[in-house]
Amino acid sequence: MQHDKHAPHRPRDSSCGHSASWHIVEEGFSADRYGLNATLFALGNGYIGLRGTLDEGLEGHAAETGCYLNGVYYSEPITYGEKAYGYAKNNQRIAAAALPHELRLQLDGVAVDLHHGEVLEHRRTLAMDEGLLYRLLRWRSPDGHVLRLESRRLVSLVDRQLVLMDYRFSLEQGSGVLSIESALDASPIEAGESEDPRVGAGINQADLAPFEHQANGSRLSLGFQLRSTGFALSAVAGHSLKLGKDTENALSPVSPTAVKSDEGLRVACRYELPLEPNQPVTLTKYVLYADSHTPTAVSAADLTQHLATCMEREFTQYAEQQQAAMTAFWQGSDIEIGGDPSLQQGLRFNLFHLFQSVGRTPGTNIAAKGLTGHGYEGHYFWDSEIYILPFFLYTQPALARNLLMYRHSILDSARARARELAIPTGALFAWRTIGGEECSAYYPAGTAQFHINADIAYAIRHYHDATGDDDFLRDYGAEVVFESARLWPAIGHFNPNKAGRFCINEVTGPDEYTALVNNNFFTNAMAQAHLRYAVELYHWLQAQAPDKAASLFRQLSLTPEEISQWHRAADQMYLPYDEPQRIHLQDDSFLDKPRWDFANTPADHYPLLLHYHPLTIYRHQVCKQADTVLALFLLGEQFSLEQKKRDFDFYEPLTTHDSTLSACVHSILANELGYTKKARHYFEQVARMDLDNHHHNTQHGVHTACMGGTWLCMVQGFAGMRLQRGQLQFSPTLPKGLTHYRFKIQVRGRLVELAVDQQHVRYKLLEGAPLAFSHGGRNLTLGEPDATISLSLAGNLHD
Amino acid sequence: MQHDKHAPHRPRDSSCGHSASWHIVEEGFSADRYGLNATLFALGNGYIGLRGTLDEGLEGHAAETGCYLNGVYYSEPITYGEKAYGYAKNNQRIAAAALPHELRLQLDGVAVDLHHGEVLEHRRTLAMDEGLLYRLLRWRSPDGHVLRLESRRLVSLVDRQLVLMDYRFSLEQGSGVLSIESALDASPIEAGESEDPRVGAGINQADLAPFEHQANGSRLSLGFQLRSTGFALSAVAGHSLKLGKDTENALSPVSPTAVKSDEGLRVACRYELPLEPNQPVTLTKYVLYADSHTPTAVSAADLTQHLATCMEREFTQYAEQQQAAMTAFWQGSDIEIGGDPSLQQGLRFNLFHLFQSVGRTPGTNIAAKGLTGHGYEGHYFWDSEIYILPFFLYTQPALARNLLMYRHSILDSARARARELAIPTGALFAWRTIGGEECSAYYPAGTAQFHINADIAYAIRHYHDATGDDDFLRDYGAEVVFESARLWPAIGHFNPNKAGRFCINEVTGPDEYTALVNNNFFTNAMAQAHLRYAVELYHWLQAQAPDKAASLFRQLSLTPEEISQWHRAADQMYLPYDEPQRIHLQDDSFLDKPRWDFANTPADHYPLLLHYHPLTIYRHQVCKQADTVLALFLLGEQFSLEQKKRDFDFYEPLTTHDSTLSACVHSILANELGYTKKARHYFEQVARMDLDNHHHNTQHGVHTACMGGTWLCMVQGFAGMRLQRGQLQFSPTLPKGLTHYRFKIQVRGRLVELAVDQQHVRYKLLEGAPLAFSHGGRNLTLGEPDATISLSLAGNLHD
Repeated sequence: MQHDKHAPHRPRDSSCGHSASWHIVEEGFSADRYGLNATLFALGNGYIGLRGTLDEGLEGHAAETGCYLNGVYYSEPITYGEKAYGYAKNNQRIAAAALPHELRLQLDGVAVDLHHGEVLEHRRTLAMDEGLLYRLLRWRSPDGHVLRLESRRLVSLVDRQLVLMDYRFSLEQGSGVLSIESALDASPIEAGESEDPRVGAGINQADLAPFEHQANGSRLSLGFQLRSTGFALSAVAGHSLKLGKDTENALSPVSPTAVKSDEGLRVACRYELPLEPNQPVTLTKYVLYADSHTPTAVSAADLTQHLATCMEREFTQYAEQQQAAMTAFWQGSDIEIGGDPSLQQGLRFNLFHLFQSVGRTPGTNIAAKGLTGHGYEGHYFWDSEIYILPFFLYTQPALARNLLMYRHSILDSARARARELAIPTGALFAWRTIGGEECSAYYPAGTAQFHINADIAYAIRHYHDATGDDDFLRDYGAEVVFESARLWPAIGHFNPNKAGRFCINEVTGPDEYTALVNNNFFTNAMAQAHLRYAVELYHWLQAQAPDKAASLFRQLSLTPEEISQWHRAADQMYLPYDEPQRIHLQDDSFLDKPRWDFANTPADHYPLLLHYHPLTIYRHQVCKQADTVLALFLLGEQFSLEQKKRDFDFYEPLTTHDSTLSACVHSILANELGYTKKARHYFEQVARMDLDNHHHNTQHGVHTACMGGTWLCMVQGFAGMRLQRGQLQFSPTLPKGLTHYRFKIQVRGRLVELAVDQQHVRYKLLEGAPLAFSHGGRNLTLGEPDATISLSLAGNLHD
Repeated sequence: MQHDKHAPHRPRDSSCGHSASWHIVEEGFSADRYGLNATLFALGNGYIGLRGTLDEGLEGHAAETGCYLNGVYYSEPITYGEKAYGYAKNNQRIAAAALPHELRLQLDGVAVDLHHGEVLEHRRTLAMDEGLLYRLLRWRSPDGHVLRLESRRLVSLVDRQLVLMDYRFSLEQGSGVLSIESALDASPIEAGESEDPRVGAGINQADLAPFEHQANGSRLSLGFQLRSTGFALSAVAGHSLKLGKDTENALSPVSPTAVKSDEGLRVACRYELPLEPNQPVTLTKYVLYADSHTPTAVSAADLTQHLATCMEREFTQYAEQQQAAMTAFWQGSDIEIGGDPSLQQGLRFNLFHLFQSVGRTPGTNIAAKGLTGHGYEGHYFWDSEIYILPFFLYTQPALARNLLMYRHSILDSARARARELAIPTGALFAWRTIGGEECSAYYPAGTAQFHINADIAYAIRHYHDATGDDDFLRDYGAEVVFESARLWPAIGHFNPNKAGRFCINEVTGPDEYTALVNNNFFTNAMAQAHLRYAVELYHWLQAQAPDKAASLFRQLSLTPEEISQWHRAADQMYLPYDEPQRIHLQDDSFLDKPRWDFANTPADHYPLLLHYHPLTIYRHQVCKQADTVLALFLLGEQFSLEQKKRDFDFYEPLTTHDSTLSACVHSILANELGYTKKARHYFEQVARMDLDNHHHNTQHGVHTACMGGTWLCMVQGFAGMRLQRGQLQFSPTLPKGLTHYRFKIQVRGRLVELAVDQQHVRYKLLEGAPLAFSHGGRNLTLGEPDATISLSLAGNLHD
């Protein structure tokens, strides 16, 4: 870690106590970190996401701000240098909602901007236990005034439409007129183009059609439609201003001036407040959002009414609600670790952002960057199913269900996409999308990643296994599994050249440093699991819900012949293997390539994708991320420990981890293989990936898959948790440097707590029916709530 | 062939005599064929290319016109949906020069436009023997006037800057005022976007900076600069108008009105001529071009002076010069065939357009569409070296030399490109370019076609072999061969997985329906030949020109160690082969793919690239064009006839010939293998590819590679001509339906004529030293000029 006094405070030892691991603190001010901190201090509630920019803005950094509504996007044609048939036609980009927190501040006519004057004190604290962002600013203006500003901000976890800001201004020195222009601002922001494919393009709001644009005293309302997609976005704001040392002695209300922009995309109210030294002004700003496509869509009148109700409560009451919601979250979802406050902080930070970013309503999912930035244009990827879903599945299964319901909701788009790819029946899910249509403009690392279909089926099986939610499987899951399974016979074939084995050519696996290969091991193995599950599900549905089965099979024209074809394809699936080395081959030709010349690759040439042409990269044995190794984790029961070891030993040295989806999987496998130092090393990468900005791009948004991976590292890595057909297994270890860890999981209606310290592992059933499980291969049962089993950790303590 | 009365006249039998095979005739008028005929009737001289659009234009078809200067292009950034490192940054697009032939005609205020009124008679004749385009129009205007227009047009083969038009207007019925506004027009033309990757984007002249814009009586001048590339383009025009029945009785000169556009990109002079019935008006328009980058770059004053000189001569004198130039061309380059006037016409049409399109000056080459349209954006491809060069090499070797000099001239760009691809030394030629920089926006079928380096080296060897031009090889060729050879060790490796053989992975061969494969047979075999030739050339240069060798090797840091590395790589080159079937494999994994389902592919789904996603195509055994089969032709001496037969039999049924580069190669191989019907069938495709618009896209320009392929079919196919280390070989056959054929070739200073009829083959030495050659394996010598050897054709007559 580099020393940077402006970096979020990283506790150095456990003596920091409570606040260290629950708080992210920025001390002082650094314009260089403005974008990064805007991500780290972002707030969200699964619907609204608000970047942690300063209310008063910062000169030259307008493009760093952003407010998003999950699932709300605009669309524009993708421009190709050279087009071809079936390319994704339109991009979808998460839309910018009106900024809720914009304040233009002037002190005696001088703009408050931290680039000017002198920052005497500046501190921001993201309180993850409370769900609040605190700020203290003491700033000397160029003409000598000293302004003190204390503020709090929350995006409500209780009222999903609500963003709340609370400000307290005072002058510590001098007197003067404070002008506060508080806005709802949806004016387009120009952002530069980037050479980095991982950066979303600047949000271009050329297709905004304003329909509501009111400033009425301190009440603001703004509405506009996205012409390209039809989404209507509305926002209203109300202000409560109090002058004087406390509310008891409030001066008479001040009437603000209305400010409306010409183009109809910004409304504001401006207060002009003569201030004497130490005479505070308190302003609370209530902002409510709605859009036309979500369950909370409401009329302007409804919003106004709702606003009035909200304004009956003060900030403090909302803050209490917020804290209660966070407490409930942490109670079920926290992973407590002892001995390394820095990792503890990173871990909580990651879980906090996952919780803030995950969609709670139909048709919304969790973006690669959550709701913290428009990197990757706000798209949803397979990250949701493979990296993120387990955390929710075992802590808040309803949210996991919503993630999977999203896939069902875009099934028609996936069917249409399959037709474009000459796949005669079934569905092909988009590699990246918001609304369902394929948005990948580079098919070799997009559409060619056909494994997404299998990933989704895998997640559905996992969800059902962990919850027993038959209703979901019957009414939604089965259809997704069947339709997506049809991909494999369409793109694969029984290859006479490989003894009739079922081969799948011209695909790209998870590793994006290898593209368009034949028989990617991960893809084939996952397709095999997918087809097997589809066959199983066919019979399950017939047995469990014969009427539903009959109607669904009729609707899909699904016949026993097709099922037997699936069975045969799965049975004959070709899994490339190198006999001499006894390793799985990432694909047919992986061994035919020379190893990447790591020794002569300068450190600043990573990630390779920013310094080498794809042809240079693809020609070599080099992996961006776990590929074969990921299959060894996801389908771990199919492979012996010896096999996993040989594969890991072969692929790990070839892997750059240029993708943030890689280190967590390596940590889990390393743990399973007893590579305790590596397990710990990779975990450290993962746990503080964004906090320490390891990949130098957190300014574009957090890495939600990696955050999900943090949970995986702890629960599936160190604690060795697996679920196989309802059978829960653990094989806990304690990584070096930790004194203990503890977490809860929900499985099939039970709530179980696992606590590991240097001597013991303790299992405790907190809720639900008796639970049989295995510990290191030993079968155990927790008979009733509060039942506890305590075992020695001997031998599983990392050295 | 479909019947279409508006199609260029296709002679039905040999009774048509001379005109049928030398003329392309359009009878009547069809707006549907406007774009197509604009291509077919294009004129050019290697520098200027003028599309065969109507002088008066046609409503709604403005974008079909075009005038180009070889090597003159503008540039604009390529937009990618998703960027990656090393992608081609800018596109280069052949620029539109000022249109020389634009006439706005009005008759009593009514625009002359063939969409309106009635076309009583319309005929255009491209006289390939004269190098002229003739036109006759008789048109009844909506208000009843009958206008007669006879015109001739030429792009001078003698004065490369000159375009000349000659018009004779008269009224057959009625009297009225004829308004003729004759322009130089460089105003940008809007053209729509196309989904077809083979269509160039509309010419966007947003970066035009006018610097000259004069209309002075009947003298016009226009100059503008292309901001993106710095090219300055100038044009001047002069008019000579004559009224009355003949020039003797000419009325006094009429002073035209000057017309200048606001934006400075169009100048014109307008004549208002009261016409009585049958009182003709004759107008001759002289247009001269210059640009800032070619040897003829001249000042405006020079151009004006040059114009004055030109105008001292009448059209007829230029027409005579033109005919003389054409006669000289045909004398050396014609291939006469008997028995099939339709094929004869096609063959001559193809050679005619090659001659019109090929660059004559340093830095210019021949575009995929010649100078007949902006399809493929005017780019130069490998087409030049592999498909087109042989025609010039054996008929006008100086033009072949210029094609190769072009590659030397862009060597620095190719070096820079190699660095972008992490190739530490040497050069990688752009897959498509004008100025030298890579312009391919789709690298899997662009940059990945590394074989272009070997193709260029092959052409240099071929050129030297056929001409003995040691100076070229020493001063230019060797450097290109060495620098381009360095690619192979950089992208290939000695593969322990293939017994240490030298393998080249992640390339695309000529077949663009298979991409990014390992060990493409064509690429590896051509790379092997390239490396071997480079080694040979190293020693040749040391022996022939030790000083030059020493300085060049020093300049390139070329060491004996590197040469021995080349030797070893060539020696150990891996050429994929399937033992069971005893066929060459197109690439390592070709047999692993299922065969394309041709039986269930609708006829209207070809070309496949317009109806299937690349992933669908790449996954199958299906070839767009000759790939392995092309290697069997180019490197024919390396393979037995039995081997060629097995390979051809395997690949031919898998080939769609969706590329126009395919049929000619198949014809040649079929001929060699005795597949006489196939040889004839493919030749027919090739010979009239554009005339009959087989690929439905000739409207975007002719297919010069295919035109070159026509010559290859005759000379290297039917006549079986090969050259191996200066040794000329023939094995002539006479395809069914032909009564005879005859052509001349130049080899190492000799001019030889080959004539084949149904009984005999006759070789005649027309010029030069004695020539030893082989005929069907039999060694023969032509001892002195006019020496003739006549042999029986027995057994080589196709049945």
